[in-house]
Amino acid sequence: MPDPASNSYGDLNVLSPDPICAALFLPDMDLPVSKTEGHFIRSHFAAPQISTAGWSLPISGDVDNPVTLSYDDLLKMPSHEVTCLMECAGNSRSTMQPPAEGVQWNNGGLSVGTWKGVSVKTVLERASIKGSATDVLFVGADSGTESHAEGTLVYEMSVPLEKLLHPDSILAYEMNGETLPKDHGYPIRLVTPGWYGMTSVKWLEKIVVMDHPNGGFHEMDYWIYPATDGKSDAKARRVTNLKVKSLISSPEKGDIIAPGKHQVTGVAWSGAGAITKVEVSTDDNRTWHTAKLEEPNGGYSWQHWFFDWEVVSVGNSLIRSRATDSAGNVQPMLATWNFRGYEVNSIHSVPITVRKP
Amino acid sequence: MPDPASNSYGDLNVLSPDPICAALFLPDMDLPVSKTEGHFIRSHFAAPQISTAGWSLPISGDVDNPVTLSYDDLLKMPSHEVTCLMECAGNSRSTMQPPAEGVQWNNGGLSVGTWKGVSVKTVLERASIKGSATDVLFVGADSGTESHAEGTLVYEMSVPLEKLLHPDSILAYEMNGETLPKDHGYPIRLVTPGWYGMTSVKWLEKIVVMDHPNGGFHEMDYWIYPATDGKSDAKARRVTNLKVKSLISSPEKGDIIAPGKHQVTGVAWSGAGAITKVEVSTDDNRTWHTAKLEEPNGGYSWQHWFFDWEVVSVGNSLIRSRATDSAGNVQPMLATWNFRGYEVNSIHSVPITVRKP
Repeated sequence: MPDPASNSYGDLNVLSPDPICAALFLPDMDLPVSKTEGHFIRSHFAAPQISTAGWSLPISGDVDNPVTLSYDDLLKMPSHEVTCLMECAGNSRSTMQPPAEGVQWNNGGLSVGTWKGVSVKTVLERASIKGSATDVLFVGADSGTESHAEGTLVYEMSVPLEKLLHPDSILAYEMNGETLPKDHGYPIRLVTPGWYGMTSVKWLEKIVVMDHPNGGFHEMDYWIYPATDGKSDAKARRVTNLKVKSLISSPEKGDIIAPGKHQVTGVAWSGAGAITKVEVSTDDNRTWHTAKLEEPNGGYSWQHWFFDWEVVSVGNSLIRSRATDSAGNVQPMLATWNFRGYEVNSIHSVPITVRKP
Repeated sequence: MPDPASNSYGDLNVLSPDPICAALFLPDMDLPVSKTEGHFIRSHFAAPQISTAGWSLPISGDVDNPVTLSYDDLLKMPSHEVTCLMECAGNSRSTMQPPAEGVQWNNGGLSVGTWKGVSVKTVLERASIKGSATDVLFVGADSGTESHAEGTLVYEMSVPLEKLLHPDSILAYEMNGETLPKDHGYPIRLVTPGWYGMTSVKWLEKIVVMDHPNGGFHEMDYWIYPATDGKSDAKARRVTNLKVKSLISSPEKGDIIAPGKHQVTGVAWSGAGAITKVEVSTDDNRTWHTAKLEEPNGGYSWQHWFFDWEVVSVGNSLIRSRATDSAGNVQPMLATWNFRGYEVNSIHSVPITVRKP
């Protein structure tokens, strides 16, 4: 349980204690891979206590060969490891104006983890999916109520087959070289690298192959519902790929620094390709400077960047970073407003004060 | 005292109980003049309890004829009445990104009041100010501590003579036809129409004519300290004239409405002239429509406007209003960031849901 006095949980900052939602502290983004106790947590319901004794994972639905895999079966299958950034679809929600309902994530709803498990593709091949299959439903063991829905809900998400046939979509049993922790989905969770975290269903209970998207409360809740008046062409669509984004790890909001040499550091990523450029502004969007960008660590992680900043005068500075990806996407000053506050990739702004020591 | 259960105080929404800061509810902007119990309150320190028996107001400093006026002296002098919008310099602060410290005003830190009193000019003439005079210091009877300053502070502000020589700058003893209430500065407050509220010093204790701005903690705190890195030309400056702005009084954030005919209503104002145009967008800034604008009520009040909106389809709408004044100033989508979060006149955005009944 979170410590109510410090509002901390592991190395995280608790935004909501039960079910737990906890954010990393931005300086921890300096690591190539987040520590397990520093990996953000977003749970929709209380974490179920699951023992692998007797646990098994049925794969049914539009398959020719329904199978039920034990935990040991999964451990024995060919393994696949992927290091990826996971970001909550609602990360940075608190920076959206006007505000949206939901967990008021600051910018810390993201982390990089190394996940090991079995490619979903391998499991689906074992079950011989039918030609009619288009989507696969992943059902978690966590359940509860939501304020905008009736009755008891189970957390479940269907994912298009196309995403799952990539070997990097895995049923993970290890995180950062150790058994998957309870908060991260023990014994087995789905990991869908390059997508926002909502489809990486934890505490898997069953898998159902389908010939259509499942819909369901959470699946339809993780949609972009844009503002519209019916006369313009804004269309609702599902939240999937990570948007191009960068965050500043140092300095932090409210820091007081002295004139002299400083380094502005941070991370950048995109679900649409590698990051090709990060720019930094230290004067509230008036001028921009190109930051030094480090090489990507695989295709799904954040890339580190830094900018050497010679601070010449006292006053209030506003530091901003702006990422561009290989598909030409550039972070906007203001992300497009949407009803649930998802995919907020507005340029990160860090106010600091420069004062003579 | 505010009612802790309802968080209300008169017709206001309490943002900070002690000293009291309380905001109007936006639908109350439909009135031409706010009710006294619905006029926003921004106090820096606890309201002093002042009896007019023995109370007097000395006018000293750079004057040839120092005078001390009793409450009755002021009542007997030629009176002047002004109806004006007063807005807290920090109004809408909570909508600024990144956030600034201070009372997290929503948009309700404004009201229109009718103030009656004596023109400051009349009083200054009585005291025969010297040719060297440039500013006049108004000292309140309220005092206390502030987190960023040492020792006990008195709330005081100097105002340039030029502003005070306009007869509409008054020492007010009446508000809306009744004796000035304690929360609004009884027995005497300064009112500086067209400026943000910080110079309308309440609970006046003395007036000092000076040959320079006084400075002082609060006076220097109500400055725009822009983000700068010393290489660009952003300069700090004092907060004075009200910026062009509009707010939506109906619908309200979170309203659920049915398709059909609706009216979007609101107010607009500027310290730089009359409002010449208000536009409304109901589709998140994609298209804008001209609203019908009512005539100004004197030079300092809000102007009402309305837009007839035919709602044709269900979904989430984002209603925005954008005012233009006679000097050509247009509300920006995002007001310029500044360290203390003043003069936030970003376009007001109201998310609502359209649903079939």
